[in-house]
Amino acid sequence: MLEKLKEQVLQANLDLPKYNLVTFTWGNVSGYDEGTGYVVIKPSGVPYSNMTVDDLVVVDLDGNIIEGVNKPSSDTPTHLVLYKKFKGIGGVVHTHSPWATSWAQAGKSLPALGTTHGDYFYGEIPCTRQMTDEEIHGAYEHETGEVIVETFKNIDPLMVPSVLVHSHAPFNWGKDAQEAVHNAVVLEEVAKMALRTYEINANTAIMQQTLLDKHYLRKHGKDAYYGQN
Amino acid sequence: MLEKLKEQVLQANLDLPKYNLVTFTWGNVSGYDEGTGYVVIKPSGVPYSNMTVDDLVVVDLDGNIIEGVNKPSSDTPTHLVLYKKFKGIGGVVHTHSPWATSWAQAGKSLPALGTTHGDYFYGEIPCTRQMTDEEIHGAYEHETGEVIVETFKNIDPLMVPSVLVHSHAPFNWGKDAQEAVHNAVVLEEVAKMALRTYEINANTAIMQQTLLDKHYLRKHGKDAYYGQN
Amino acid sequence: MLEKLKEQVLQANLDLPKYNLVTFTWGNVSGYDEGTGYVVIKPSGVPYSNMTVDDLVVVDLDGNIIEGVNKPSSDTPTHLVLYKKFKGIGGVVHTHSPWATSWAQAGKSLPALGTTHGDYFYGEIPCTRQMTDEEIHGAYEHETGEVIVETFKNIDPLMVPSVLVHSHAPFNWGKDAQEAVHNAVVLEEVAKMALRTYEINANTAIMQQTLLDKHYLRKHGKDAYYGQN
Amino acid sequence: MLEKLKEQVLQANLDLPKYNLVTFTWGNVSGYDEGTGYVVIKPSGVPYSNMTVDDLVVVDLDGNIIEGVNKPSSDTPTHLVLYKKFKGIGGVVHTHSPWATSWAQAGKSLPALGTTHGDYFYGEIPCTRQMTDEEIHGAYEHETGEVIVETFKNIDPLMVPSVLVHSHAPFNWGKDAQEAVHNAVVLEEVAKMALRTYEINANTAIMQQTLLDKHYLRKHGKDAYYGQN
Repeated sequence: MLEKLKEQVLQANLDLPKYNLVTFTWGNVSGYDEGTGYVVIKPSGVPYSNMTVDDLVVVDLDGNIIEGVNKPSSDTPTHLVLYKKFKGIGGVVHTHSPWATSWAQAGKSLPALGTTHGDYFYGEIPCTRQMTDEEIHGAYEHETGEVIVETFKNIDPLMVPSVLVHSHAPFNWGKDAQEAVHNAVVLEEVAKMALRTYEINANTAIMQQTLLDKHYLRKHGKDAYYGQN
Repeated sequence: MLEKLKEQVLQANLDLPKYNLVTFTWGNVSGYDEGTGYVVIKPSGVPYSNMTVDDLVVVDLDGNIIEGVNKPSSDTPTHLVLYKKFKGIGGVVHTHSPWATSWAQAGKSLPALGTTHGDYFYGEIPCTRQMTDEEIHGAYEHETGEVIVETFKNIDPLMVPSVLVHSHAPFNWGKDAQEAVHNAVVLEEVAKMALRTYEINANTAIMQQTLLDKHYLRKHGKDAYYGQN
Repeated sequence: MLEKLKEQVLQANLDLPKYNLVTFTWGNVSGYDEGTGYVVIKPSGVPYSNMTVDDLVVVDLDGNIIEGVNKPSSDTPTHLVLYKKFKGIGGVVHTHSPWATSWAQAGKSLPALGTTHGDYFYGEIPCTRQMTDEEIHGAYEHETGEVIVETFKNIDPLMVPSVLVHSHAPFNWGKDAQEAVHNAVVLEEVAKMALRTYEINANTAIMQQTLLDKHYLRKHGKDAYYGQN
Repeated sequence: MLEKLKEQVLQANLDLPKYNLVTFTWGNVSGYDEGTGYVVIKPSGVPYSNMTVDDLVVVDLDGNIIEGVNKPSSDTPTHLVLYKKFKGIGGVVHTHSPWATSWAQAGKSLPALGTTHGDYFYGEIPCTRQMTDEEIHGAYEHETGEVIVETFKNIDPLMVPSVLVHSHAPFNWGKDAQEAVHNAVVLEEVAKMALRTYEINANTAIMQQTLLDKHYLRKHGKDAYYGQN
């Protein structure tokens, strides 16, 4: 079932080492099928090097395994919360990519400092609050998703498709698995440049709102004019 | 038409990923033909991996498409201003190369701190002022070119072939597309070393003028003695 | 003798350049056979590129050469102390991997700042005290091992499988040679991210104990639920 | 003539890009033949990618071209001073390797902070004073060599085989061209780690003299015991 989606999710998982986003098995990508309401996700702790579509796991939005011989990623409950609450997304990726993870460990949101950021993210990429002991002792991975959703109370997740989970690492999403990984690559790049920018000039201000509007909107929305057609 | 120039511009575009100057499609190179007054430029948003000469677009200096099935790079109007105002240049390249972009985001000109810089740039590489809301709301990419030209009011663009556009990223140029990319590589290298230099010694002074003269002039101008004549 | 262990130790040594942990011959891996009490270790100063199982050296826990035509690594006495004192380990690796070595040179223990660290190390990775002149003038490599053991007086080496030797570099261990190298890769990654984390936020606190417990224990011990059963 | 030396010098030049020490043609290696008193050196401004032994130039210690169709490296006079004044060296390499160059630009000597440094350099790697206008206007490349020699008035160049030329970049040497390049690789590595060490702990002290003695002397001199004798 969902063979085409599995191919996409497999490819997106294989893109993680290709783009230097992961060490060992520290990352997982899933894709969502709106028709069935099922999610295809990476198995837990399996190396990318010899992964095939048959290793992937199909689960429903409540986490029941629909198909697959492996256990799904231990982060599956976080993915599921995002699919349930962020309407319109079709792919989720979690990595410990080092620049974004450093911002997450520092507990700092990533400000928009230039057009590279503005081309993909319509404003600051937020860092969540710390999780409570109750949340950590409870359904931890599910609660991680809930804290992400809480962080986006006043932010449109389709316009800021990444988050930094405090003391942990980033999650990213997109209209499909490939776009989610694309956003993860961009996040890593802007996280790297943001630190260096502050090292060059500790007083760097966030970019002008006008410039952010211009760059975000020339690539997104009805008046976009970047790319072919 | 302009088949030889197209080959050069294609090769120069393919050199961007080779020299690690770009992520995805974040960069574009053009070349100028003085005979016809036409510019060959990368199409907008097309990946480098399968680009061919037929994907390139030929435009005149007013931006009219002369040949090509694709839309030209969205940054084309910036390139055109540079060709019109900086007499003697034959290639322009724009990237978001991360070290130079970090200086641009910090809004800081890149000072000449050593002979690596002085071998290619006869002094500081300037950062433009911020663009005004009017410029951003107007013909944005054209105005970007105008702000670059304004920045070079008292600088010879043939002796300082790069600029940092505030909150954005660098543009570089040269006598042809290949030299423009060459300068983009050097800019990235000196941008990297300049930050590290200040991290080692926050009080580093700019290099002696005598040493800058020596290094720039042993590689450029009538008394140059570097390389095989 | 010990052909299977030799293959493992050879492979683990070849993994050092693969994971960018070494320059030239700056690293060595050994493996321990509990049955015989023998250790298989890299020869001193031999390049990885053409190393074979026949280059490896077999020694007993007192350092007597049991088999092999080469001199064993000059760091062999350090490895032997660790096998004797840290019950349950079966592999040791020493490298000068640059991020971890920078922490060792700075004389600073590596604090647990996020879940990447907590997934592998149950708390801070300690830096030893400086060695005394007597220790350095004496059986230096043996004394290096003794100082490491002293550092773990109140730390379980099975739960924190790495150490930073002051003004020197890291040693790592694990249940076998492969796991020791795995831990060396993780150490390098968390050492890199820890410095960047402090550069982003100089006041970063160590991670919550609850979160450290959660991440360490979901991968280790009887209640672990990460990976395939 | 000197075919074997030419092969060594060619290989050492090709090792520069292999070890990521150079961008474009920013580096040159030479080798010295004690029998003839001749030096084999890289030609000026020729890319490494298609260099052959026939491109190399043979000069005597006064800089007269003995053999070769190309102009020798513009840095040849610096190499020649080093061969004349530093008795016992047989190879010289100049690069703009970025970490070492950053220290040179900062005008700071590179202190011995750990055993990686001490394994190769018996103490601080000095940075020269700035050159005077007279020296720069005069026989610049020759004067560069003289300033290096002045810097080693109280340092044994065989025990500290590298120097940082102020506002410029490093020179390295060794018993032959290969060892000079080896030292250049080590210099780059310790330059990188030294900055990071200070970023982790701004108050890091130089390493204990006892430890420096131990590490330098276990690899060099009559009592060395590292490697396969």
